[in-house]
Amino acid sequence: MAERRFAEGDFEARVRASFARQKAMETIGAKLTVVTPGVVEIEMPHAERFTQQHGFLHAGVISMALDSACGYAAYSLMPADAGVLTIEFKVNLLAPGRGERFLFRGTVTKPGRTIIVADGQAYAYDGEAKLIATMTGTMMSVVGRRGIEG
Amino acid sequence: MAERRFAEGDFEARVRASFARQKAMETIGAKLTVVTPGVVEIEMPHAERFTQQHGFLHAGVISMALDSACGYAAYSLMPADAGVLTIEFKVNLLAPGRGERFLFRGTVTKPGRTIIVADGQAYAYDGEAKLIATMTGTMMSVVGRRGIEG
Amino acid sequence: MAERRFAEGDFEARVRASFARQKAMETIGAKLTVVTPGVVEIEMPHAERFTQQHGFLHAGVISMALDSACGYAAYSLMPADAGVLTIEFKVNLLAPGRGERFLFRGTVTKPGRTIIVADGQAYAYDGEAKLIATMTGTMMSVVGRRGIEG
Amino acid sequence: MAERRFAEGDFEARVRASFARQKAMETIGAKLTVVTPGVVEIEMPHAERFTQQHGFLHAGVISMALDSACGYAAYSLMPADAGVLTIEFKVNLLAPGRGERFLFRGTVTKPGRTIIVADGQAYAYDGEAKLIATMTGTMMSVVGRRGIEG
Repeated sequence: MAERRFAEGDFEARVRASFARQKAMETIGAKLTVVTPGVVEIEMPHAERFTQQHGFLHAGVISMALDSACGYAAYSLMPADAGVLTIEFKVNLLAPGRGERFLFRGTVTKPGRTIIVADGQAYAYDGEAKLIATMTGTMMSVVGRRGIEG
Repeated sequence: MAERRFAEGDFEARVRASFARQKAMETIGAKLTVVTPGVVEIEMPHAERFTQQHGFLHAGVISMALDSACGYAAYSLMPADAGVLTIEFKVNLLAPGRGERFLFRGTVTKPGRTIIVADGQAYAYDGEAKLIATMTGTMMSVVGRRGIEG
Repeated sequence: MAERRFAEGDFEARVRASFARQKAMETIGAKLTVVTPGVVEIEMPHAERFTQQHGFLHAGVISMALDSACGYAAYSLMPADAGVLTIEFKVNLLAPGRGERFLFRGTVTKPGRTIIVADGQAYAYDGEAKLIATMTGTMMSVVGRRGIEG
Repeated sequence: MAERRFAEGDFEARVRASFARQKAMETIGAKLTVVTPGVVEIEMPHAERFTQQHGFLHAGVISMALDSACGYAAYSLMPADAGVLTIEFKVNLLAPGRGERFLFRGTVTKPGRTIIVADGQAYAYDGEAKLIATMTGTMMSVVGRRGIEG
């Protein structure tokens, strides 16, 4: 697998523009806080309307933010004309999603030309930070497919 | 692993009551349509506010509904005093989340006493049904832990 | 993702030739029993030298045979000049690997042009068959990469 | 989840005794090199008889050694009377298993009382070290189940 370990030119602008098009991120109140080559962080406050039956943040919302963090970490290392697709991910839920705020970090583990693997961590803040979930995601760089830009 | 292949008494009422407490399900517009022992189905319409950057349903929302379908499939076979926790899941995204409506089915593959494994499928409807994602999830039956009822 | 749902000409011969080059399969005593378009089965006897600490078949051997079954199920649907690579897989261990013989089945769930997703089941036979493990694997079709033929 | 972050007394002796009972580890030529609380390393030389069709180390052998590394990392933090079972794992294959020697490291990410999550890395050495695979595994601590000691 030919590797890309560098980010192209305006990678941060491209990541931010694509994130801004994710209506789901706005809906859950998530903000893009850190964008560096291969590492992206997203933060969101607790949201009562996204809880599961025990009152914790739903695992699906944790997955949504982790998937975006991992996907944009991968996208930050892709060529300027590529789009990013998530092929698959796995999430381990380590502790209840209980806290005032949550931080989601995605980091590229393997920057391939076509396939990029990223790992993510989710933290709940409630005075102190607690690791609540981890993700491993496999992303694909797609060039020249209509409807898959950014 | 001692196995449980039957559902206790009012399993459907317990599943429906717990689902009703998941604010995240109401927020994404999901309805519980089928509850049989070991199989649960959830449906939701397309929701513009939960799209990703290409306008498809966000993988995290697909995961959210699949996690609930798999979790409640597991819960339907648990003792009446147990609560259900998701330990981990993996999602493969097979096709874009594009459609008017979506159906999520969770089915128990291995009903253990403590650990229950469930598999899920997500379909998009747009005239015809299309398989858009699969999940394998590992659920845990928890008895006597405060805050984890239902 | 452009889809391929058919197998090319001599797919069975290609699968059998590639399997024969897997020294690991011979070493664990595995035989290729079924090769149809998108479905492959492998069988092996219990092997004392591949047990874990409790005397059951090691989860890694179960994964090895499931990976080959899923990989060749995918390969059976690839163009004649492609090679198959496993990108990732997940295995759930449902019951101890205890039996006289084991059967591993791989079935293609999503036949994409580049990415193929396959699901696998492992059964132990000991008088009756018992499902002991499941796999979901993501495979990649690789054309024109030196050293990755078959 | 009540947590255990310390290892009991003779954890290293227990890990080494259990590893010695894994015939599969001897068969693939794997040695236990590092045993500290929550971290275990295993090494093995390249073995021609465990290759896949392109001549690389079979993904199943990589999984076998990673599963043992993760499982024993988890076991090192369990009570002296517990046995360890792997519930599930996911492996991402990042580069071909090509090298003279391989190192597999398992590290506990979340030490729960019943459920322990460990992450693993596999490296190939060929002059320099290369990350070839990662694993996330979910392990279970089992007490008082016949046949599951160690």
